[in-house]
Amino acid sequence: MKVPHSSLLTLALLLNHLSSVSGGKILVFPLDGSHWVNMNVLIEELHAKGHEVTVVRASDSWYVSEKSPFYTSVTLPGTGGFEENFETFLSPQLEIRLQGKPTSFWSHIWTGIQIQQMVINQFSQLHNRMSEMIVQMFEDENLMRSLHDAKYDVVLTDPGIGVGAMLARRLQVPLVFNVRWTIQGEAHFLIAPSPLAYIPFTATELTDSMTFPQRIKNVLSYVLGMYTLSYITEPHYKPVVLRYFGPDVDYSTFFLDADIWLMRNDFIFEFPRPTMPNIVYMGGFQCKPAKLLPVDLEEFVQGSGDHGVIMMTLGTLVGKLPQDVAEEIAAAFAQLPQKVIWRYIGERPAGLGNNTLLVNWLPQNDLLGHPKTRVFVTHGGTNGVQEAIYHGVPIVGLPLFFDQPDNLSRIRAKGGAVILDIATLDRHIFADSLMTVLYNSSYRESMQTLSRLHRDQPMKPLDQAVFWIEYVIRHKGARHLQTQSNKMSWFVYNSVDVIAALLTVVLVIIFTCISIVRLLWRMIFVGRKVKHE
Amino acid sequence: MKVPHSSLLTLALLLNHLSSVSGGKILVFPLDGSHWVNMNVLIEELHAKGHEVTVVRASDSWYVSEKSPFYTSVTLPGTGGFEENFETFLSPQLEIRLQGKPTSFWSHIWTGIQIQQMVINQFSQLHNRMSEMIVQMFEDENLMRSLHDAKYDVVLTDPGIGVGAMLARRLQVPLVFNVRWTIQGEAHFLIAPSPLAYIPFTATELTDSMTFPQRIKNVLSYVLGMYTLSYITEPHYKPVVLRYFGPDVDYSTFFLDADIWLMRNDFIFEFPRPTMPNIVYMGGFQCKPAKLLPVDLEEFVQGSGDHGVIMMTLGTLVGKLPQDVAEEIAAAFAQLPQKVIWRYIGERPAGLGNNTLLVNWLPQNDLLGHPKTRVFVTHGGTNGVQEAIYHGVPIVGLPLFFDQPDNLSRIRAKGGAVILDIATLDRHIFADSLMTVLYNSSYRESMQTLSRLHRDQPMKPLDQAVFWIEYVIRHKGARHLQTQSNKMSWFVYNSVDVIAALLTVVLVIIFTCISIVRLLWRMIFVGRKVKHE
Repeated sequence: MKVPHSSLLTLALLLNHLSSVSGGKILVFPLDGSHWVNMNVLIEELHAKGHEVTVVRASDSWYVSEKSPFYTSVTLPGTGGFEENFETFLSPQLEIRLQGKPTSFWSHIWTGIQIQQMVINQFSQLHNRMSEMIVQMFEDENLMRSLHDAKYDVVLTDPGIGVGAMLARRLQVPLVFNVRWTIQGEAHFLIAPSPLAYIPFTATELTDSMTFPQRIKNVLSYVLGMYTLSYITEPHYKPVVLRYFGPDVDYSTFFLDADIWLMRNDFIFEFPRPTMPNIVYMGGFQCKPAKLLPVDLEEFVQGSGDHGVIMMTLGTLVGKLPQDVAEEIAAAFAQLPQKVIWRYIGERPAGLGNNTLLVNWLPQNDLLGHPKTRVFVTHGGTNGVQEAIYHGVPIVGLPLFFDQPDNLSRIRAKGGAVILDIATLDRHIFADSLMTVLYNSSYRESMQTLSRLHRDQPMKPLDQAVFWIEYVIRHKGARHLQTQSNKMSWFVYNSVDVIAALLTVVLVIIFTCISIVRLLWRMIFVGRKVKHE
Repeated sequence: MKVPHSSLLTLALLLNHLSSVSGGKILVFPLDGSHWVNMNVLIEELHAKGHEVTVVRASDSWYVSEKSPFYTSVTLPGTGGFEENFETFLSPQLEIRLQGKPTSFWSHIWTGIQIQQMVINQFSQLHNRMSEMIVQMFEDENLMRSLHDAKYDVVLTDPGIGVGAMLARRLQVPLVFNVRWTIQGEAHFLIAPSPLAYIPFTATELTDSMTFPQRIKNVLSYVLGMYTLSYITEPHYKPVVLRYFGPDVDYSTFFLDADIWLMRNDFIFEFPRPTMPNIVYMGGFQCKPAKLLPVDLEEFVQGSGDHGVIMMTLGTLVGKLPQDVAEEIAAAFAQLPQKVIWRYIGERPAGLGNNTLLVNWLPQNDLLGHPKTRVFVTHGGTNGVQEAIYHGVPIVGLPLFFDQPDNLSRIRAKGGAVILDIATLDRHIFADSLMTVLYNSSYRESMQTLSRLHRDQPMKPLDQAVFWIEYVIRHKGARHLQTQSNKMSWFVYNSVDVIAALLTVVLVIIFTCISIVRLLWRMIFVGRKVKHE
């Protein structure tokens, strides 16, 4: 085979880049929980490329272990059980959702408000703990000196919480985000123009094609979101910001410091929308080809014959469900000729069919990539949805909280998913939805198309991510990719002053003209009248 | 050397792409003149990748030859001397600019208005000829049938004029742009949000950091631009659009059809600004490492010793200058210890120094890449400026028309250029500017930084361009990267209807509240008064 000239050049270029940044020093400030899962993928890759990674973790971290072959860690005093609270965080929400069984429009809204209120309260506690953590960290002179003296090349953080960004500014080190959400919701809203006529705001479950009432909902949601940001979230950090950065600094500005935004997203998953020069899309960077299944699982899967397999998991955080919901799900599965693999750690449902295998854990990626897998029943976490896209498997969605409804509504809009409300779920609804996705080929075809498009990129998403982190190391930041709008008030950004000035000039001209005409009118006609009289 | 795993994967991916689209059929509708130069680079590369390229050209084309080893051509009847007019087009502008010698603010404005008027008139003629060309083309049934039957995979066009886009819609073939300008000015303005507070409008010579008066100028220029578009440009095409596409179609919408916008630009050259999912930056894709100079030229260059070489060219279209201007330039060069290579086909200036070599043509890229080259004196055409960035050579700019002032003002803002007004040029000003750029190291350092950044990309710009053209072929378009905003009126896009509705509701509520309070007030107090009375 003749290798084209330009490909060799590209390879040479790539190797050149790889060799030119060996041994950068990277300080990682992760977000705990499921966010850590994909941060860890990045860290392993950075480690493999020869970089020295240090991870800041809380002493009681659930996910981030102190020892790892891929990084050294700096442990902060406990943050009051960030993860434990994360659990107590979710259960009440789930309860409300399940008790709600909203039958009308208004009860649906009421459930929404209750959950919203609970989330705001829970996040308030989280923000309080985070601002305490900032104080502890910044006041620990030994820690700060050692972080400073380590002369990191870049801080890599997940800006779901702004602590990492604040630390980067304090240390005056370039900043890279591994991001899907900021304190303001979906990350684009903080940095890119987002016309509300076709960009659905966070947690609205809307698409880029909205009716007039939907557009009203979208604008109102945005207003509510901005209100929450200004009057609920930001005040938690005001004292800290004032203390360490002075009175002229706004909490949101720390986020705009980022040299590069590595977005866990792409335009196969997300609706097309305006973007910015320093946003790099690495959606699905954690996806890999499937590995072989364990022998017993492979045997079970092969036993499905042509009917294939359904796999179900609601994510690490939700291993069990109320017994009545579990029974409905089990009964629906039992009606089907497919085999079912269900990750469930609750009490075994009485009506569980012979075709259904309960497991404590499942190799999600390997199962999604298995040729026998027909449907993925999921809560709609970003990682799972990305893997479903990567492998082209259609979805029956049972969204629970956070970004899950939004994630799934995107896949539904693109023809790859049916979404159910867990509060109104029964065996008939569930079985019907499974049958629809199993036997209406359009769902599978849509996901296969998304898969083909997702895989067809100039560079693998993980390589892109590493390239841009190394880029920031090589050039000591990427300020030349940040727009001037970062420094502007909304007033100047929207040219309000210019428009006001121009309108004033126009009005003055009109007024002057009218005055002159009136004066002339009087001089001529009133003058004449006087003559006539 | 150990080749990293992921690089091999990237290479494999790349080869996979290359092999999966062998033999696409590409119909190219180029823009003549300097735009053809870079379209031709793309065509050669596409040909090398095994694609079959057909080029639509005018019978009297100046640049686009009928026969080529890289493409077959389809020749349209003469368009009334598009290129000849292009020449007569420029000379009068240059004359105005040179005669103007603007000494005051108002004479400067007056020169600007005169040139603007002339450009509008000249473009009007061009647009008329283009719309005649469209009619000739669409009415030629044999031609249209053969184009249709050829079943092209993609139309590649430069949308400086919209004919190619219209042809693509007529043939219902996916569309890719090789673009820097559309009928509306700088291409981003048609497709991406462009806040006028920091995005300088076309031909303003402003930067992304504007004072209040500059922002006023920017907004007014934009308003003028939109006026020109709606009332001068579009009417030329109205009858044609009506005839072939019906009454509901707007000329601008043809441009929004493009699946991919290959932008001859990047954020090293351009100021950072919002962008869109279907914009791909391939700025400098035509740049190549320098080749060896011809022996005699190399000898001349080496003769410069440590002083190095200055090269000057004002582009293919402007080979000569008025004698007095040429004399001033020659005299300035004669004062310097550098060697000078000047592409000049006019009469030899009397005061030409021994250090200055006049040439009819020069190997611009090879000279820019020569280690002895110190300064590039240029009119600021996009190709030349990109090559200067690529090789890191500082600029003394003599902008003449079109995008040249804007191109150069970007490089000046980034610290790599001094700009002169050719109308006020004399030997002292010119020599001073040359000395500044020669001996103040910051100019060279800035260009070297831009060069380093420009060259540090995940993929070579030309490979990117080819990748995305092949992407469109593979997936029969890239509609999934087009935003819904393309289909929206400005009214909906800006949520004017939603805001109006919400304001109405707020006003009605306020009004109702006031009414009720007044009613109660009356009932209580007026009632009492009645009782009291």
